[in-house]
Amino acid sequence: MISRVMSAGLPAHVGERVTIAGWLHRRRELKSVTFLIIRDRAGLAQVVLPTSEADAIGEESVLQVEGLVVASSQAPGGAELTEPVLTRLSGPVEPPPFDLYRPGVTAALPTILDHAPTTLRHPVLRGGFEVAAASAAGFRAALTGLGFTEIFTPKIVGSATEGGANVFRLDYFGRPGYLAQSPQFYKQAMVGVFERVFEVGPVFRAEPHDTGRHLAQYTSLDAELGFIADHFDVMPFCRDAVAGMVESVRERAGLALQTLDATLPQEPAEIPHVQFSDAMELISAATGEDVTSEPDLAPAHERWLGQWAAREHGSDLLFVTGYPLASKPFYTHADPRRPRYSNGFDLLFRGTEIVTGGQRLHRHEDYLAALAERGLDAAPFEGYLQVFRHGMPPHGGFAIGLERWTALLTGATNVRQVTLFPRDLHRLSP
Amino acid sequence: MISRVMSAGLPAHVGERVTIAGWLHRRRELKSVTFLIIRDRAGLAQVVLPTSEADAIGEESVLQVEGLVVASSQAPGGAELTEPVLTRLSGPVEPPPFDLYRPGVTAALPTILDHAPTTLRHPVLRGGFEVAAASAAGFRAALTGLGFTEIFTPKIVGSATEGGANVFRLDYFGRPGYLAQSPQFYKQAMVGVFERVFEVGPVFRAEPHDTGRHLAQYTSLDAELGFIADHFDVMPFCRDAVAGMVESVRERAGLALQTLDATLPQEPAEIPHVQFSDAMELISAATGEDVTSEPDLAPAHERWLGQWAAREHGSDLLFVTGYPLASKPFYTHADPRRPRYSNGFDLLFRGTEIVTGGQRLHRHEDYLAALAERGLDAAPFEGYLQVFRHGMPPHGGFAIGLERWTALLTGATNVRQVTLFPRDLHRLSP
Repeated sequence: MISRVMSAGLPAHVGERVTIAGWLHRRRELKSVTFLIIRDRAGLAQVVLPTSEADAIGEESVLQVEGLVVASSQAPGGAELTEPVLTRLSGPVEPPPFDLYRPGVTAALPTILDHAPTTLRHPVLRGGFEVAAASAAGFRAALTGLGFTEIFTPKIVGSATEGGANVFRLDYFGRPGYLAQSPQFYKQAMVGVFERVFEVGPVFRAEPHDTGRHLAQYTSLDAELGFIADHFDVMPFCRDAVAGMVESVRERAGLALQTLDATLPQEPAEIPHVQFSDAMELISAATGEDVTSEPDLAPAHERWLGQWAAREHGSDLLFVTGYPLASKPFYTHADPRRPRYSNGFDLLFRGTEIVTGGQRLHRHEDYLAALAERGLDAAPFEGYLQVFRHGMPPHGGFAIGLERWTALLTGATNVRQVTLFPRDLHRLSP
Repeated sequence: MISRVMSAGLPAHVGERVTIAGWLHRRRELKSVTFLIIRDRAGLAQVVLPTSEADAIGEESVLQVEGLVVASSQAPGGAELTEPVLTRLSGPVEPPPFDLYRPGVTAALPTILDHAPTTLRHPVLRGGFEVAAASAAGFRAALTGLGFTEIFTPKIVGSATEGGANVFRLDYFGRPGYLAQSPQFYKQAMVGVFERVFEVGPVFRAEPHDTGRHLAQYTSLDAELGFIADHFDVMPFCRDAVAGMVESVRERAGLALQTLDATLPQEPAEIPHVQFSDAMELISAATGEDVTSEPDLAPAHERWLGQWAAREHGSDLLFVTGYPLASKPFYTHADPRRPRYSNGFDLLFRGTEIVTGGQRLHRHEDYLAALAERGLDAAPFEGYLQVFRHGMPPHGGFAIGLERWTALLTGATNVRQVTLFPRDLHRLSP
């Protein structure tokens, strides 16, 4: 192993000769001295040498530097490396597509994405992925602590049961196969085995919309649990999962948040909620436009509710419950007291939906009735219905899109900024 | 929420009336009393009632039972529920494909897999997935503790750079797309951003072999790190990852190990290693068959080495280093002192390979030379080579197949027994 001190550790070694290693983040040549800023996974370190001895090494060269640590109030962390002996581990063939050392990202999104292996080295872009990683870890930790078991489910399926339009088709050993649009069936089935399950994995949508929030692949944080009374028993688990994500980001990606100038939401002990029909009446009363017969919330309605929740409840988060059943998938449980409405919920974060969840049907006969009600043939769903032939408890769950959550948290205007090598209508590389 | 006591918690409530809920695991009717064994995620609980009051409820019915807890040396955990009031939450439409209450799994593999949503409820089958979940958690925890960052990479790629034969093709918005066979390129690229990265995610192989160890989708535990001297700097991280997996299984899936009668390996502080050419000489000397010019280890050689490691080193684990370069992918780093051999390694567990790893090339010019050496055109690899145009440190990594590891650990003879809803040449459902 290259025996090295990390940049952040330099101040502890003042007076010693140590080795650091990393990328040449910036080379700043003055008349008599040259500064080399070395970037490693812990931060930045400054190396000083006489300009007469400084070779013209290009930025993003990988260097190993042995030198004497001296205290310096001008250097990052208060110490710098002097009298350096440089070893170049590998050099760039060409300069990066934009200056990675400037505080802001000066390139346009297509340039960033085309050169992602290099551009993601910029601390601002890198920061988004630290937030995503911390969020996923927080989701898992929260649910594991609540007795959930992690599952890994198939991503190639034999039938396109959920929304046939946006599904990717593939050749599966000469037969048609489809990429999974969600682990919905599998997580429900595994409630029959473990009662409480979660999955963190890719889902695929052949999404024809070319917008800042649609991707052909995203990371879905899925959870499902049994022995609930209704969706109000699912919502506290959703709250705990989101609180775990916020806490993990605070602990593990604090520096990234600073770099990105992002603010975490408060985690309320209980997230306020509003019923869909009440929300529509509030919006109608406030805007003068009658939206009470709309089947779903438009983005503008979500934004209005986000502001309302901040104003009335001091909360960045708001549950909206009881959407019309017709706007929800066939497996959604109806509200027993208002059969045209569902036991479903969404969670809005700063006026954008980040979670969809609810209670599912759990009786085989209810599935047959729901399919018949919608005029759907039961035969293509036989694989899905199998599990309900063998006794399933009342259950429900939710799903969070990791990239959309990360974009909202970090203030990214396009979800592609916080997606590693995004896939969309136009983009299949790098 | 259904307010309930878990089965394992009953003994703490002797003398109280409580509610439990779960599946009817077994119904045993005697002349005067009937026993109902209720299964929940914590274990089993016994309910006793007069046979005259016991309805003919089928096994796998989901029940909520309110009753009086009384101490009973005959019951699981030493307490049972009497004077029960039963509520049936949902009933089976038909009996399960085999008796889930019998200690052994009495069905053949095709039956188990065809009816997986139900058959996985059997404690022996369920146990394998508990071991898998605990293993994945241990892998993540070990590497997170060592400064690795989690990544989520694309599973649809624009070119089939690694082994074009076994790749799934799909229609990507009218263009050809391919399912990722590994996150190899992406994890290497992200070493340039985070230095140390890992991913737990699905990989896809259009695997034409119909054996007990090949799957079309499996879960790959991938890690990659920079600033190494050679592959001997990667191996301790691999050891730590495996040790973390073993420790996590011990802590979190202890009961499953008992149910499966499985034994964990010792985690040696250092895993013994043997060089490939030395291994071939050992095998030749022991078996009388000259294998010294073979390019790779055959399964029989791996088994022999597994026994040798157990005998000579008392270890279930053995690193084999320095395979011939020709048997390794083009990105493999050569041994500078023996250019026909690689800085690659495998890890054998009880005589079967579970990890492949090694040092990768890190200089752009070395990649061009390696491709030319193998007679490969560089153009299709341009996306892959991009990252090496901008300064990459010496790096390496490894990958562990979660299902194969779990099968070896639990003694499953077919990897499908420990794969949730496996995908293979013949199977695309459920």
